[in-house]
Amino acid sequence: MFASLCVFAVAALVYVMLGFAWQGAPGQHAHALLIGGKAWNWIAAEPFFLLGLRLDLSPASLVLLLQMFSVGLAAMIPLGAGAERWKLGASCISTVFLAGWIYPLFAHWVWSDGWLSQLGSMYGLGKGFVDGGGAGTIQVVGGLSALSIAWILGPRRGKYSSAEGPAAIPAHNIVLVLAGCLLAWSGWIGLNSAGAILFYHCEPSVVVLIAVNTTLSAAASGLTAAIITRLRFGRPDASLAANGWMAGLVASSAAAAFLKPPTAILVGMVAGALVVFAVDLLEFRLTIDDPGGAISVHAIAGLWGLLSVALLSDAGSGSRGQWLAQLTGIATLLGLVLPMTYGLNWLIDRVYPHRVEAEDEWQGMDLCELGAGAYPEFVVHGDEFTQR
Amino acid sequence: MFASLCVFAVAALVYVMLGFAWQGAPGQHAHALLIGGKAWNWIAAEPFFLLGLRLDLSPASLVLLLQMFSVGLAAMIPLGAGAERWKLGASCISTVFLAGWIYPLFAHWVWSDGWLSQLGSMYGLGKGFVDGGGAGTIQVVGGLSALSIAWILGPRRGKYSSAEGPAAIPAHNIVLVLAGCLLAWSGWIGLNSAGAILFYHCEPSVVVLIAVNTTLSAAASGLTAAIITRLRFGRPDASLAANGWMAGLVASSAAAAFLKPPTAILVGMVAGALVVFAVDLLEFRLTIDDPGGAISVHAIAGLWGLLSVALLSDAGSGSRGQWLAQLTGIATLLGLVLPMTYGLNWLIDRVYPHRVEAEDEWQGMDLCELGAGAYPEFVVHGDEFTQR
Amino acid sequence: MFASLCVFAVAALVYVMLGFAWQGAPGQHAHALLIGGKAWNWIAAEPFFLLGLRLDLSPASLVLLLQMFSVGLAAMIPLGAGAERWKLGASCISTVFLAGWIYPLFAHWVWSDGWLSQLGSMYGLGKGFVDGGGAGTIQVVGGLSALSIAWILGPRRGKYSSAEGPAAIPAHNIVLVLAGCLLAWSGWIGLNSAGAILFYHCEPSVVVLIAVNTTLSAAASGLTAAIITRLRFGRPDASLAANGWMAGLVASSAAAAFLKPPTAILVGMVAGALVVFAVDLLEFRLTIDDPGGAISVHAIAGLWGLLSVALLSDAGSGSRGQWLAQLTGIATLLGLVLPMTYGLNWLIDRVYPHRVEAEDEWQGMDLCELGAGAYPEFVVHGDEFTQR
Repeated sequence: MFASLCVFAVAALVYVMLGFAWQGAPGQHAHALLIGGKAWNWIAAEPFFLLGLRLDLSPASLVLLLQMFSVGLAAMIPLGAGAERWKLGASCISTVFLAGWIYPLFAHWVWSDGWLSQLGSMYGLGKGFVDGGGAGTIQVVGGLSALSIAWILGPRRGKYSSAEGPAAIPAHNIVLVLAGCLLAWSGWIGLNSAGAILFYHCEPSVVVLIAVNTTLSAAASGLTAAIITRLRFGRPDASLAANGWMAGLVASSAAAAFLKPPTAILVGMVAGALVVFAVDLLEFRLTIDDPGGAISVHAIAGLWGLLSVALLSDAGSGSRGQWLAQLTGIATLLGLVLPMTYGLNWLIDRVYPHRVEAEDEWQGMDLCELGAGAYPEFVVHGDEFTQR
Repeated sequence: MFASLCVFAVAALVYVMLGFAWQGAPGQHAHALLIGGKAWNWIAAEPFFLLGLRLDLSPASLVLLLQMFSVGLAAMIPLGAGAERWKLGASCISTVFLAGWIYPLFAHWVWSDGWLSQLGSMYGLGKGFVDGGGAGTIQVVGGLSALSIAWILGPRRGKYSSAEGPAAIPAHNIVLVLAGCLLAWSGWIGLNSAGAILFYHCEPSVVVLIAVNTTLSAAASGLTAAIITRLRFGRPDASLAANGWMAGLVASSAAAAFLKPPTAILVGMVAGALVVFAVDLLEFRLTIDDPGGAISVHAIAGLWGLLSVALLSDAGSGSRGQWLAQLTGIATLLGLVLPMTYGLNWLIDRVYPHRVEAEDEWQGMDLCELGAGAYPEFVVHGDEFTQR
Repeated sequence: MFASLCVFAVAALVYVMLGFAWQGAPGQHAHALLIGGKAWNWIAAEPFFLLGLRLDLSPASLVLLLQMFSVGLAAMIPLGAGAERWKLGASCISTVFLAGWIYPLFAHWVWSDGWLSQLGSMYGLGKGFVDGGGAGTIQVVGGLSALSIAWILGPRRGKYSSAEGPAAIPAHNIVLVLAGCLLAWSGWIGLNSAGAILFYHCEPSVVVLIAVNTTLSAAASGLTAAIITRLRFGRPDASLAANGWMAGLVASSAAAAFLKPPTAILVGMVAGALVVFAVDLLEFRLTIDDPGGAISVHAIAGLWGLLSVALLSDAGSGSRGQWLAQLTGIATLLGLVLPMTYGLNWLIDRVYPHRVEAEDEWQGMDLCELGAGAYPEFVVHGDEFTQR
């Protein structure tokens, strides 16, 4: 939790100082590359430190405000994957690159007349790459950063050492997790609404549709995850159901403004099922240790949300062009953003290792990094959990 | 807390798919019964799955949005009464009936030109049954469902077994309860405002009056409960004061738009006193075990709120007609809604028993139902509390 | 936490019944004193109980609504300083004087055409005393009340008794503190915006600027505190960083509407540094025991915020007149409000001692005052912490 505050603060500061200059807002100055006789807009050319930007209610200033929050959200996603073994300083440095370069660059491509949004007007691929509320820009970008971090850090000690398979390591307070779900839900309605209105010129009245769709998607996803874990393990798993709820929010982000309510339920059901199997796959097959489920919830559900735009929404209506646009965006995320994120974090690791010292890890990181135990009721059980 | 998420999700999904078709919005299609030469509007006739409803900012779409949240709130109320012994699956089934049938039916009568609202125009009973923010529709309906559940479940094991009278069973974290009080308060201002504007055609400027009245009622009610427990037991009881705060919010729901600020304080003071005595009466006289105080806070304070419309508000101004309208609504709740709710939950109990197995109950339900203890710091004391 | 609810309730009730009559809104009836041939407006002359105030969206009713919340916030500040040893009844009585007299009087001077705001028009001192969001009115007034309480109560038992210097007494759950930081941040954006629009006639579009500045100030302040504690103690201190975050919010209150974003970062950095050194100074040099850091966060950072109006904002632009106006306001706070607050609380102490009984303090106050432990996981360690 302390890391959340630090990372959010770093992200907001770096984004305002550097990031926004590279992301820009629709209709502002930008650099273009001439490829195949067409001008591809690839990066904004605004001054640093918001110089020259009037912070009234102009569209550009609203974009800045929304993106300052969004980049903070994206920066907090990797913390779930790095929990209990990621050094605070390293997470702040990693955030500098995410908020100062990776996020603004991709967001420019999608939302600020960049080349992914130009796919529609230049090659007639539907409406270009569509991502109403940031399923790709915020969630997948953050989720791929989480994946890079989990790869580089390796699993927590004791996670895969015992003979009976991965040990369950209870850590977070379920009550707080679930309260967070309800807070996230109200924030998401705002996020999805603001994106659709600012970037896709929806009428403000779309807010009602978005609120209903976002709620239905989260509800369907959470229940699906609860039912699947009930069928598989005999009892529903609160932690996976909460992850399902979040995955439903994430998946709804891309298309909430363009779905009918029954379709939003379908989007949520698929997201809830995906997240249960993704958590399983990562943990047991790929042995990637992601304590908070950040990769499954944000990257996997986000990718499904991007696909749902072409498959189920009014924006795509299943046209081949929209399919191509969405797949181009997804290919960019996996083929360009992921290597770039991994590479930058790998470089950081050379200079300033991401992982905390071994003896600190046994003691519980909150205790050692911050001088006081955030979860005092667990510290005493440390030894039993890890079967030293 | 996990049950809250599930029940909220079930309620939202069922309401959107079925419930709204039966509740409808003012001015939409409905069925009427001809009794005594007059057409009594008793149920809406909208298509299921929101088909044909445009989700823009039209009044009908705003009613849907508000009611989707309201029905989720109503569905969470019985969880307080069934805490620690209500099976998760049974609570979800019970929610299906509440959100799919009971809530929409009564809400139609009150808010969608139904027969309770027609009492004013047809028989000159004041303005008909008035319930601005759902004191009856949300709170009493939910509270009566809580009463049915508590009756059917019976008390927790060990609650009334010892010789010295009911044992206190501490369970929930007081800090979270109180943080919930402050969140509820901000939500309630929105709930009361939306209801008054959508259903009683108040000007949007009534929001200021409602915010002041809601705050004063909650503050007066919480302090009254604290003072009464201080006088009776020597020290104020935080849990009862928090219940008092909630009761003040509940009681303000019916009339917040029609009270003057000093009267709102009076409404709150009565609510705070009522809740302390109601908790006492239920627990010690009627031996109904309601761990969260849901019946007292929602049903009793809600009924008082409905009476306050006739007794203290500008809407009623003490006229005999308004008294009759309010009493007709209350009689409908107690004489029709309560038996229907009890009956449906009794039927569920025949097919799928509500109560968890005895051995699971000893261990703490969160642990057994969900595979992880939500309140780890209490589990170890389980035996001592119950004097096995 | 229980005390927060009580104190908030008392503050709202007393303010509505008495306080607002003395504070009033701009342009309403007031008493003036003729000094030096000029009419100095010193107190409002409105009826008690809001009689005659129409609660529609008129400016006066919006001032009431905003101030009812603000006075509740100010009243909660001293609770941080009196934690674990302030009697609940005494804190309620102290709140009656704060919300019924001290706060309304000073707020009238600053915001309701009172003499501090007249400094500009009467003597040409810039724009008069400027305090956009209540850095002085809410934060410093509350912080000086906290200082008075900490002085009168004296330190917690065991705090300064051991030979190795002040003992650290861990008490509050860090997770909740940090969640509170994020909630406070969203509330603060509303507080700063409402104040600037209502009292300084800013355009509603200033909301974007205020949201950006408030966020940057909090982020810069929290990070500065984390970095300073890292440099001084080897590891960042989560509790001081959270205090830094809050101090950044407090400092931004005075001038958020009149700063440029890079300057807002500067305001935050100074606030974060100040709070670390102020906590140190109070705890080790002045041996004032302030468990929640309320004095440093609210009084010290608030005073810095008031200075920043003259030093860094567009409103002051460093003119000598604005400096004089801000310094007059600060002198009034320290020379008039502080002695009045201390005196009133000293009088209360004569009649009804502020401090809990000694044996109750050992047991943890939540337990003894409320009949149930709010932090059960700490109670068992009570003895070890205090080295009895």
